[in-house]
Amino acid sequence: MSQALRAGKFTTNDESLIKEILDKVGCAIKGFSLDQIPPEMGKVIYEEIKNITGVADPYKNIKEANIQESLGLYPELKKLVRGSKNPLLTAIRIAIAGNVMDLGVNKTFDIKKDLKQILQQDFAIFDFEKFVAKLNKADSVLYLGDNAGESVFDKILIEELGKPVTFVVREIPIINDVTYEDAIASGLHEVAEIISSGSTAPAILLNLCNADFLNRFNQAEFIISKGQGNFEGLSDSYRPIFFLLKAKCPVIAKELCVKENEIILKSIN
Amino acid sequence: MSQALRAGKFTTNDESLIKEILDKVGCAIKGFSLDQIPPEMGKVIYEEIKNITGVADPYKNIKEANIQESLGLYPELKKLVRGSKNPLLTAIRIAIAGNVMDLGVNKTFDIKKDLKQILQQDFAIFDFEKFVAKLNKADSVLYLGDNAGESVFDKILIEELGKPVTFVVREIPIINDVTYEDAIASGLHEVAEIISSGSTAPAILLNLCNADFLNRFNQAEFIISKGQGNFEGLSDSYRPIFFLLKAKCPVIAKELCVKENEIILKSIN
Repeated sequence: MSQALRAGKFTTNDESLIKEILDKVGCAIKGFSLDQIPPEMGKVIYEEIKNITGVADPYKNIKEANIQESLGLYPELKKLVRGSKNPLLTAIRIAIAGNVMDLGVNKTFDIKKDLKQILQQDFAIFDFEKFVAKLNKADSVLYLGDNAGESVFDKILIEELGKPVTFVVREIPIINDVTYEDAIASGLHEVAEIISSGSTAPAILLNLCNADFLNRFNQAEFIISKGQGNFEGLSDSYRPIFFLLKAKCPVIAKELCVKENEIILKSIN
Repeated sequence: MSQALRAGKFTTNDESLIKEILDKVGCAIKGFSLDQIPPEMGKVIYEEIKNITGVADPYKNIKEANIQESLGLYPELKKLVRGSKNPLLTAIRIAIAGNVMDLGVNKTFDIKKDLKQILQQDFAIFDFEKFVAKLNKADSVLYLGDNAGESVFDKILIEELGKPVTFVVREIPIINDVTYEDAIASGLHEVAEIISSGSTAPAILLNLCNADFLNRFNQAEFIISKGQGNFEGLSDSYRPIFFLLKAKCPVIAKELCVKENEIILKSIN
């Protein structure tokens, strides 16, 4: 409800429309069971906002600004990666730092501050050795994107992977998640094939994904999943996935047995 | 929704019951118009909690503890009033300080800290001269109570009024609002007649009040109304009311054109 109110206020100044969003989302709560995950609710919230206000992409301008800001940081970050002892690990840290650009969790963020911190921060879960070993054996990488702006930081990591990469975006604009258009604006077409998962939720929810994505997902040898939403959607998957994220809320932190704000490189399967 | 969740968690550990409370309250939102006031929603929340959990008075133990803590402060506060240059004004400040004991707004509070501050704080609205002038002419006072614990501080003010006082309580337990039983435990029967307004909301909502209260309210020459809930319920009234409150939330502060946490002695009519 708090996110519905915040997103509603962001999208329109018309109080009666905001009230209508809260009415609809409030009533939708009873349709959700306690074992459903936040991105499923997020989908409902943003669908209602679209239906009620007619605005399909409320964060369009913010996404564009975040991508521009990230592109501005790109040359400096590339230098940092090239000059570091372990370029791959530095690129992973940068990709995780980019994950702070999440308007589903944060009202505001300071990417420069987060970058500085995460470049030095210890990992709470650190399956880096396994990451390197599996990457070396893989023919290609399926990279599940999360937010716009963060996508520029993903490009930096992709450039260090040394493998053909498929970068996966959301089917439609939802919160500030990365779409096909955002991925192009981030320059990802220069380093990866870009496909849509088909998911209209702020996460990869497999029941919403298209056949092409499911096919690639089921055959992929090496999958990188960015962010909380994708982790919530895929943490029970039987596929070999490396989750890169910052634990930005108490629920995720608890599930991972880490503290809030800790950074994670977690392997499953 | 945030209050429903907080009160639900306070009342039961059973997640499925808490979910049921949120389902019902979420759906009730569409039944409320934007010009309805928070105590009307509060009524629905606590009715649902009662229906779903079977607990009619979740804050019973907290209310008793707050009353005991306030009774423990009573002798010291009486000394303070007697030793002050303006005992009536000091008693008014003490009665306002007691209004911090509001579990509808606050999760926790520190009455000693608030007392210390409010005894020195400037009033943002200060109709004290009118208060004194009207009080001198009045034959009796109708005193609309707010919370349990605060009720002991109300006793201190009542003792300085020098007029016969009727102290008005809620009809049933709702949040930590003062009931007949709480008023007796606070010693108010020693200094006032105690009656119920009939309101089952956490405020005097006239459409919920009983005939006896409405009769007294409509004839009263001098009315003291404590707290935000009663202010919300009665700010449009045509009766002569002195509102004593601390502006504890942004909505109330905005309506009164004051800053949050400012203290108010406001006369209407």
